[in-house]
Parts: sequence; structure tokens; C-alpha cells
Amino acid sequence: MARVVTGQPRAGQAVAGAFAEVGVATTHEAQGRVGLLNPRLRPRQVGAAISGVAVTCEVPPGDNWMLHVAVDLAGEGDVLVVSPTSRCDDGYFGDLLATAAQARGVRGLVIDAGVRDVSALRSMGFPVWSKTVSAQGTVKETLADVQVPLVCGDRLVHPGDVVVADDDGICIVPRVDAEVVLEAARSRALDEERKRRLYSSGKSSLDVDPALRGRLEEMGLIRE
Amino acid sequence: MARVVTGQPRAGQAVAGAFAEVGVATTHEAQGRVGLLNPRLRPRQVGAAISGVAVTCEVPPGDNWMLHVAVDLAGEGDVLVVSPTSRCDDGYFGDLLATAAQARGVRGLVIDAGVRDVSALRSMGFPVWSKTVSAQGTVKETLADVQVPLVCGDRLVHPGDVVVADDDGICIVPRVDAEVVLEAARSRALDEERKRRLYSSGKSSLDVDPALRGRLEEMGLIRE
Amino acid sequence: MARVVTGQPRAGQAVAGAFAEVGVATTHEAQGRVGLLNPRLRPRQVGAAISGVAVTCEVPPGDNWMLHVAVDLAGEGDVLVVSPTSRCDDGYFGDLLATAAQARGVRGLVIDAGVRDVSALRSMGFPVWSKTVSAQGTVKETLADVQVPLVCGDRLVHPGDVVVADDDGICIVPRVDAEVVLEAARSRALDEERKRRLYSSGKSSLDVDPALRGRLEEMGLIRE
Amino acid sequence: MARVVTGQPRAGQAVAGAFAEVGVATTHEAQGRVGLLNPRLRPRQVGAAISGVAVTCEVPPGDNWMLHVAVDLAGEGDVLVVSPTSRCDDGYFGDLLATAAQARGVRGLVIDAGVRDVSALRSMGFPVWSKTVSAQGTVKETLADVQVPLVCGDRLVHPGDVVVADDDGICIVPRVDAEVVLEAARSRALDEERKRRLYSSGKSSLDVDPALRGRLEEMGLIRE
Amino acid sequence: MARVVTGQPRAGQAVAGAFAEVGVATTHEAQGRVGLLNPRLRPRQVGAAISGVAVTCEVPPGDNWMLHVAVDLAGEGDVLVVSPTSRCDDGYFGDLLATAAQARGVRGLVIDAGVRDVSALRSMGFPVWSKTVSAQGTVKETLADVQVPLVCGDRLVHPGDVVVADDDGICIVPRVDAEVVLEAARSRALDEERKRRLYSSGKSSLDVDPALRGRLEEMGLIRE
Amino acid sequence: MARVVTGQPRAGQAVAGAFAEVGVATTHEAQGRVGLLNPRLRPRQVGAAISGVAVTCEVPPGDNWMLHVAVDLAGEGDVLVVSPTSRCDDGYFGDLLATAAQARGVRGLVIDAGVRDVSALRSMGFPVWSKTVSAQGTVKETLADVQVPLVCGDRLVHPGDVVVADDDGICIVPRVDAEVVLEAARSRALDEERKRRLYSSGKSSLDVDPALRGRLEEMGLIRE
Repeated sequence: MARVVTGQPRAGQAVAGAFAEVGVATTHEAQGRVGLLNPRLRPRQVGAAISGVAVTCEVPPGDNWMLHVAVDLAGEGDVLVVSPTSRCDDGYFGDLLATAAQARGVRGLVIDAGVRDVSALRSMGFPVWSKTVSAQGTVKETLADVQVPLVCGDRLVHPGDVVVADDDGICIVPRVDAEVVLEAARSRALDEERKRRLYSSGKSSLDVDPALRGRLEEMGLIRE
Repeated sequence: MARVVTGQPRAGQAVAGAFAEVGVATTHEAQGRVGLLNPRLRPRQVGAAISGVAVTCEVPPGDNWMLHVAVDLAGEGDVLVVSPTSRCDDGYFGDLLATAAQARGVRGLVIDAGVRDVSALRSMGFPVWSKTVSAQGTVKETLADVQVPLVCGDRLVHPGDVVVADDDGICIVPRVDAEVVLEAARSRALDEERKRRLYSSGKSSLDVDPALRGRLEEMGLIRE
Repeated sequence: MARVVTGQPRAGQAVAGAFAEVGVATTHEAQGRVGLLNPRLRPRQVGAAISGVAVTCEVPPGDNWMLHVAVDLAGEGDVLVVSPTSRCDDGYFGDLLATAAQARGVRGLVIDAGVRDVSALRSMGFPVWSKTVSAQGTVKETLADVQVPLVCGDRLVHPGDVVVADDDGICIVPRVDAEVVLEAARSRALDEERKRRLYSSGKSSLDVDPALRGRLEEMGLIRE
Repeated sequence: MARVVTGQPRAGQAVAGAFAEVGVATTHEAQGRVGLLNPRLRPRQVGAAISGVAVTCEVPPGDNWMLHVAVDLAGEGDVLVVSPTSRCDDGYFGDLLATAAQARGVRGLVIDAGVRDVSALRSMGFPVWSKTVSAQGTVKETLADVQVPLVCGDRLVHPGDVVVADDDGICIVPRVDAEVVLEAARSRALDEERKRRLYSSGKSSLDVDPALRGRLEEMGLIRE
Repeated sequence: MARVVTGQPRAGQAVAGAFAEVGVATTHEAQGRVGLLNPRLRPRQVGAAISGVAVTCEVPPGDNWMLHVAVDLAGEGDVLVVSPTSRCDDGYFGDLLATAAQARGVRGLVIDAGVRDVSALRSMGFPVWSKTVSAQGTVKETLADVQVPLVCGDRLVHPGDVVVADDDGICIVPRVDAEVVLEAARSRALDEERKRRLYSSGKSSLDVDPALRGRLEEMGLIRE
Repeated sequence: MARVVTGQPRAGQAVAGAFAEVGVATTHEAQGRVGLLNPRLRPRQVGAAISGVAVTCEVPPGDNWMLHVAVDLAGEGDVLVVSPTSRCDDGYFGDLLATAAQARGVRGLVIDAGVRDVSALRSMGFPVWSKTVSAQGTVKETLADVQVPLVCGDRLVHPGDVVVADDDGICIVPRVDAEVVLEAARSRALDEERKRRLYSSGKSSLDVDPALRGRLEEMGLIRE
């Protein structure tokens, strides 16, 4: 018995979109070092950085029917988050589905399985993060759930959460935390900028954060 | 007792070469979703797309002598397909062997082991698909079979088969099927082009293939 | 009880720096096919080729405090070599530490764990070789040893050894062997250049090294 | 900021304990083929079969302090479910913690990381399911959350859910579904017993479920 | 378009069954160190040693329908050899199918995927070799080929070949070679028995095979 | 140029042998949580616990000649520690070499590669710890070093060091530290025994080590 759920609450469009600029590493630190998907999910292009609202989709092993349903539902500012119901590395998503998704304003795809047509995906500028690249095609025989909470990359994702993805991986920000985390991430980015200037002028990180150097001896570091 | 076999039948040069344009994913679909090598074999460059006739070569663990024999045999339009007799990740192939192969008109290498000199291989435009990159060198002490059927990337490859390789991976087309599959792949590529136009204009894939949307409710999909 | 050791002997600056030009594969062959780190350590950029003197650093799982200590110690021509005390894939190193390291003249990082901010690292031209890419942040709670011999990529590295790294991986040259190996590598590079010319003119490698062809039949190769 | 939550609702003791008899495979089928943890978690003994109520515990990489807190909280009929906040294979749990847990009536441990003292654990009859076996010890420096929902073996587990574990792996039954799933599992077990008798008498499974044989030709199976 | 092929030639029953006694390692040596399946396929019991005639079966990802067809075809002295058409770790085979297979005289199962009910399989004495253990169930929606040549554990297996399996793994002997290899394996076993006696009396293996010691110095071994 | 080195200093026989009783986990803790080999090396039997003096041996990929040399050198109380010069999973060691080793008083084998004849090894009581089990045979064509320092399981091992191995894995104790570590391990074992008694009587580990409970609130643990 498969379900397509609609009408759930969503993170605000502007807030969700603003995370792309601060990026995955800073977002993750800003919300307390949580929220990352397993790094086995890798970008299949260089330099893309996106953020948006999660549209979630489960897929049976070797079957991408529900991805067509999810793309049909998705719209401006969404990011597809897809997970197989049991481990499968097939190529669930290629340039045709990407064309349909892009036409609806979808910003990218995160999938704990395989993708294909990666050369075309790069040409058309549709970014994907996947476990593998595989040309292995899929069938359309079995249903699964769309827009339900699912585990992708070993982490729980709810429809409506914020998805941030770049060359470092993928970070999920729960919908209700989005504004607070964005604020914290921006302020953290400012502080990193300050440190970057100090470091590039030759200042040691042990002195920029004096606690770092001070505690070394206190905790028993021996210099020989 | 090792053998080098010659004089086997080969896929036609023109047909074999024509697959590069339709690519791995479409070729694989056109022959009934079979023929892919395991996706652990990855391209070691971006954007190369080749096809040609398989010259097969077995190699003992840590020994690349027979690769020299295989390159000596190979010629215009060939693709080397190499597999170790037991698992080995050493760097069997580098820019010197690539220079010799390229001088003979060989189009690329597929190897279920390691390669090295990847930076030079990219510069000289000789594409490789391999399980790993490793600078670990090999010896020349033990013989193995050349131009015999072998398993590479978990799939049987016969000398004379067609090899298609691009950013999505590698697909093998049995020699006797080459013409029929090429025809089917081209016609499939046309159909994909048609769908791409419809999708990019905003049409849903569930409507372009009406069976997709219709069967959803019939099979019990619940919309909440 | 953690230690920071200083004052160890180092490979000469000029010699250490000269390996970048001959590269990993040739260096490895020139010292008798030894010295490679495990190929699970991959470059996180395309085309970088460096060499320098190892500054070694152990890190507890999930804790990068000692990396700050190591960067503080490091200087012109050094390469950081970092290994966790038990397996950990967290992102220990990002653009802030890279900025500090680059300001001191450090040439790059080799780490048997994860890195992050890889997009920024590429932009700023600081090359890294790592086991994985992960945005997972670390704490600063526990000490470990700096500038001690350690195992990185399954191989023993001493502070002061030469580190050579490029698209093929990483090779370590023991400090005391550096001059002899550099000589051997350069002479090997010349010989490879000679072979490359012969091969590109169509000569078979079996004939350039006549022992290769001659021994084939002697060892029992059958031609069918 | 770490939390220990108490007072959550729990699955009933009798119901939770009754799943051990029907086992993981049947429970999983009975709740619609969902609920399994990733099979990388393996039993570290042969033949143990348990079920009970989940007490959940997060642990930082290389730090088992919170496991002591979780054991302190746990009681009769509980099963510990432990997950590191970032991937870590250290040996978080050994015979001392097992002694403390067993004294409180805890039935076993499920951990997405390593365990040690496995020989002693087998002798004392305390069953564990883990990702790996490692003697690598841990520190007690950093806090994490206890009795919160977490992802273990790629699946969401809530405190109070039912945990079923045997030689086939681990299955989670959400607290609110426990009675219905137990009923369904028992009725399924009866049906399997019926089939087992028919099969052992030589009856073909294609005839016991006539739809299986009938649809073969209908779907296009060719017999040659 | 799926096929079930019947009437192929088979290795002789007595010969096929006799390999169990000589075992996998000796059989593999006796046929020239070839024929092993990838060691990722492991026995799921301790001490079983079988041999018989291969009945081959392909299965789609997550779908075990064709295994029911294969069991229906199989008979006395057969061994099931099963491979998914794309990578899948689901639990395709459990105690019900094992009961049906055992009733027909099938000796065991080799599968490049998952099995379940392993505790029951051990109790009933039906041995299995698999890539993984997983309780994840499968559907019965899609057809695939039965009794066709397939790649299992990275090696080509034809229906009718001999399958030898024990605690060391699995070895395939092509049907037409079975008698010659059995002869060679038995004579090798005798020779190993002779060596075992010499070794257990304290004789060095370097002296039992004098070529081993003699060539050491000749090839340049230095004793320090 | 390969070497066999003799006459190195060795850990004392009695001390080396005494570690078996305290075991791997306690030894590792007693020497400051270092010395473990990578847990990918697993025992191939249940319940064996040994300790002895390391005889080290490098082997080329697919070649076990030097293992014969190492066994020839080894004697009462030794443990073989073997590592391939590049990654290889072949079955380097089986029951014949084990017979020769056992006749000399060798206590077991630790190998970062494959073993075979595991059923016979269990019957004869010769314990092995290996990366994999594989029947894949090896040749005797190439030399390598015996009794030199090598990296096995990602850790440096010197000939003459103490090797401790049981169901938890393998730990190396440097020769010069053996007596001090044994003392510390024994005193730690006594303390563990004391704790075990307290825990089994129902005492919480947070109270047995009062610092554990006290610091929780101090470090900010929140109880809800």
C-alpha cells in the first residue's frame, strides 16, 4: 500500500534558497555538527552549490516509477531526495527525468543509489549527488511512498526540510529550524572570514583562539 | 599453459565505431537492459565516449607482461579489455603502453584493476576505465591468455565483441548482435529526443506515457 | 601522554622539492617499487603535483586539535601527513587550516581521513590527498603525537621523509635515500622518454625490450 | 548540548518479548517488508534470538561515556540501540558493560560500530549485533543524546520501539504497531508451517501458490 | 523476454558428486588454478562440503520468482547457482525454498546476493554460500532466465557444470573437464598427503621440493 | 634485491607467551590504547587465544615462496606475521604450510591477505587471523624480504615484537615494552575483575567510577 502525501508544511522558499551561499560545512557547524548525509553520496559534477526544499521519494530496488510521480509533484525551488527501499545501485535517474525536473524549476537531485547520463546532466546544468554512477536501467512495476519521511544517506529527511548540497556533500536542516540555523550560519561565515584574514597574514590558529594553545600544556603535552 | 589466439571473427569496424555516438545508457536499454560492466570500473577522465572491438587480455596478479603482448596484437579501432586472474589493484597500464597502443590506433582501455600516469593519459587523449588508480608497478614474470573469453567487471566478454564506454560506464554488445542493437539504439535515441522536447516544454512524463499515470490508482496508490 | 618532537633531521629542501617533476610513478619505480601509500587516498583536485618534507601528525577520532599544532610547526616546503589513531572519516581539514598552512609555505596535505571545503581548497590552490570528503566537523578535546613516525595509507612515514604526490597517488622516499632515488628517478625518466619516442613511432614494446618477446615462447606461450 | 530523555511511552513488555519466537524474517514480512537495519550489522554469536524494548543512545566517535549512562537507565526486557554521531568502528562495548547491563535485565545490544571481548560475551550469554569487532578502546570526554530517536543501521529507531534480533539481522517494529504486527507475524508463521509441510512432501511452490505458475506463461516466459 | 532452457548436457552424477571429498582448494589447483568464484561469497555454516551439478538461475533485483521456477526444475544431485541481474543484497532464499529444494535432492545453494532464515537452514542441514545475510524479502513480479550461462561471483557458470563448495569457497569445473580434473585432483590429494607426513615429521618444505631452496640464492636472496 | 635477516633481538619467550591469558583488549588498554592491527583481519576459528614472538615475512602479490622461507626459519613460540607488497587476497597459506609450522612449534599466523584449507586448519588446531578466506593458489617465482619491519593491518611490526591474538583481533607489543606492558595488563585485569563483581551485583558503572556521574551535569547534560 503506497501513498503520495500532499499539503505538508514547507520551509520558506527564500530561507531555503539562501543556504546555498553559506554552504554545507558552515550550515552543518551552525546547527551543532549534525545533519550530514553519509559521504558515500558524492557530487557528480564539480562546483555546484544548491539549496532548496526536500521532495522525498522512495523507490523499490530496480524500479523508478515513483520518481516520475515525484517529479510530477515537484516545483520551483525543490530538491528531490530519493532512497531505495532496499540497497540498489541501479541508474534510477538520467537526462530525460532531469529535463522534466528542470522544466518545473527543481534545483537538483540527491539519491542513495545510482544515476546515469552524467555527461548530459553536466551539460544541462542539473546537479546530482548520488551513491554511484550506473547505466543500469530500471523498470516501472511496483509502487512506493512519495513525500513521506525517509532515511537517505543514513539520515532522516522529512518532506519540507531544507536540503543544502555542494562539493562537500549534503546537509539537511529541519524545516522548523531553518531560520535560526541560517542566521547562525551567516554569523559563523562572518567569523570564518575574520579568521581567514588573520591566518593568511601568518597568525597561528593556536593564538587566534588562545584557549587552543593554553590548554596544550595543561593537558599534558610534552615537547621534546 | 598460456595461449594467444588469433583469427577470431570480429564485429564490423563501422558498426562497432558507431556506438560511441548513442552512448552506453541507450545501448544498454536497446539490447534489453543487459551488457553493463560493474560500475566499480570508472572513467579516469571526463567526457570521453568511445566504441570499438574488444581485444581481451588476462593478467596474473602484479604482472603486466601479457598487456605488452595484447598491445602488440591490437590495431585500428580496437579497445583493450583486461582482467586479472585474481583480484589485484596494481597499476598495470601507464603512459608508455598507452603511447604504443595509440600508435596502433587503439581507442582506449577497460581494466578491472589499476592504471597509472593518469595525468599523462588525459593529456595525450587516451581514455581509460579502471577499478582504481595506483602507481604500484608490476613485473614481467608469468604468462596468461590473450584473446580468450574472460570475465571483466563481472561480465563475460569475447574477443571481437563491441565495447562502448563513456562517463556512464561500459557496455558490451556481443559481436553477432551488433547491427541489430545499433539499429535499436538509434531508434531509441530518436524517441528519447522526442520525449526530451515534450518534457522540456513542461509536459509530465506520466502523461507522455499515459500508462504510467493510469496504472497508479489501479495498482492501489493512495493520495492523502 | 602526547608528544611534539622537534629538531629531527630533514631531507634537503632542494632535493625534496625536485621530485614533483619526476612524479609518483617514476619515483616509486626508481626506489624499487616500494613506498606508495594505499590508493584509497585520492587527490581532491585535478593536475596538482607536489613534493616536500613530511611533517607528521596523529589525530584522535573526531578531533583535529593536533592539526592546529602541526600547522603551527610547519614551514616552507613542508607537506602535512596526517593519520587518525583509529579509523575515522570526519572532515578534519578545511579552508581555514589551509589558509594558515599556505601562509607558512606548506605545499599540501596527505590525510588518511576526510577533508572539507574542497571547492575553496581548489580555488586557493592548496592541494590535498584524502581518504574521503566529508563536511563532518571535529572537536578539540584530546591530544595526540606530532612529528613522530606513523602509519598513513598503510605505510610507515617518518618526519623528515620526502613526500611526492600527484594524480597517481602518494609516494614516500626515506630521508636518507632521497638523493640516490632522485638520481635514479631522473635517469629512469630519460629512459622512459626514449621508449616513448620509439613506441609513438610504432615500434612494439616487445621489440624495444627484446627479452620480452624472446622469453614468451621459451616459457611456453602457445599461439593458436 | 546533550539530553537524556525519560518517561517516554514504551511497547508493552509481554508483546515486545513475544517477537523473539517468530523471528526477524517473519516479523519483517508481517509488517509489509519494512523495518530491517542494514545487514552490515551482524550477530557476534550463533543462534541467539531476542526481542525487547529499545533504549537508544548516541555516542561521539571514539567515546563511550553515554553508553554508561544508557546502561544505568536500562532495565528488564530492554535492548540497547547505539549509533555513533559520525562513522566509527571502535570497540565501544565489552564484557564489563555487558555485566552491568545483564545485571539490570537488558537482553542484548545493537550497535552501528564495534564491540570487543566477544569471547567473554559469548560465554556469559549476552548477545550483540554490531558492524564490526574491534578491541580499539574509547575515551569518556564528550556527551551525546540518550533516549532520543536516532538512525541506526540506516533506519530510524525511537526509544520504546520493539527490537527483534536473530541470526538473520535486526528488525524494528514501531511501538504503536507492535500488537498488530505480532498478530500478523504469528498468523504468517502458521501459514509458513503449512507450506513447509507441503514442500517437504515434494509439492512444488509453483503449485502451492497457483498464481506463481499460471502467470509465468502469461508474462511471456519461453521454454526451450 | 525470459527463457527457461531444458535438456542441456550435464556432468555425470557420480563424477560431480565425488569432488566434495577432494574439496575446493585441491580441485582449483588440479585444474590449473582457475575456476574459483569471488571470495565475497561465504559459507553460512561451518564444515559443509558438497559437490553437484549446476542449475543456474538469474533473478531481477528484489524479485525471487525465478528461484521458485529453478527449484521446480532441480533434482537429485543438483546445486543451485543464482545471480541477480543487477547488484542486490536482498534475502532471496530462506527455509521454505530450502525445504522444497531439499525434498527434490538438491545439495545446496550458491548465490551472489543475500539469504535469510540462516538459523533454520543450519538446523535442516541445507548448506548455502552467499554474498550476505539479509532478512529483506522479495517480490514476484518480473521474469528472468533459468538454466542459461551466467556470471556468478565474477565467473562464468554454465548449467551442467560441476560446482564444488566448502569452507574455502566455491570452485566451478566445466562439464567437459570433470573427469580429467577429478583424476588430477585425486592424484594431487595423494601427493599432498605425502608432503603432510614429511612436514609433520619436521622436514622443511624447502627441502621436500629442493628447487625451492636451491633457486633462492640463484635469484639473489641475501642472508644477513 | 631481497633479504633474509637473522639474529635480531627477540622478546623473551616466557613474557611473550604470557600475554595470551590477558588477551588483546586488555593488552591494548594497558599499553595506552595503541598497537591494534586493523579489524579487517579476522580470526578464522572461534575461541583461539595465542601470543608469541613475531617472525615477519613479505610476499609479492600471488606468490607465497617467501612464506616457505619464513616457516623454515621459525621455531617454538613464534607467530608468523605476513603482509603482501601490494594488496592481494589470494590464499597464501593452507594446511600443508600449517603442518610444517606446527611441527616447528609455531603458534599461529597473522596475514593481511587470504588463507585456505580453513576447515583443516581448525581440525589441526592451528589458529589463523586473515583478511579473507580464498582458495586462490599462488606461485613461487619472486623473492621478498623476511624478518624485516613491515606494515601489517596498517601497523608497523618488527621481528621480535610480541603478537597477541584472540577473537577480538590482534595487538602488537614492541619488544622493549613487553615486560612493562605485561605487568600493566595483569594489574588492569585484576581491576576489571573487581569491577565485574561490582557490576554483576547491580552497581552502576557511573557510581563505581564516581567521576563518570559527577561530570555529566558539570558538562551540561540535560535531563528531560
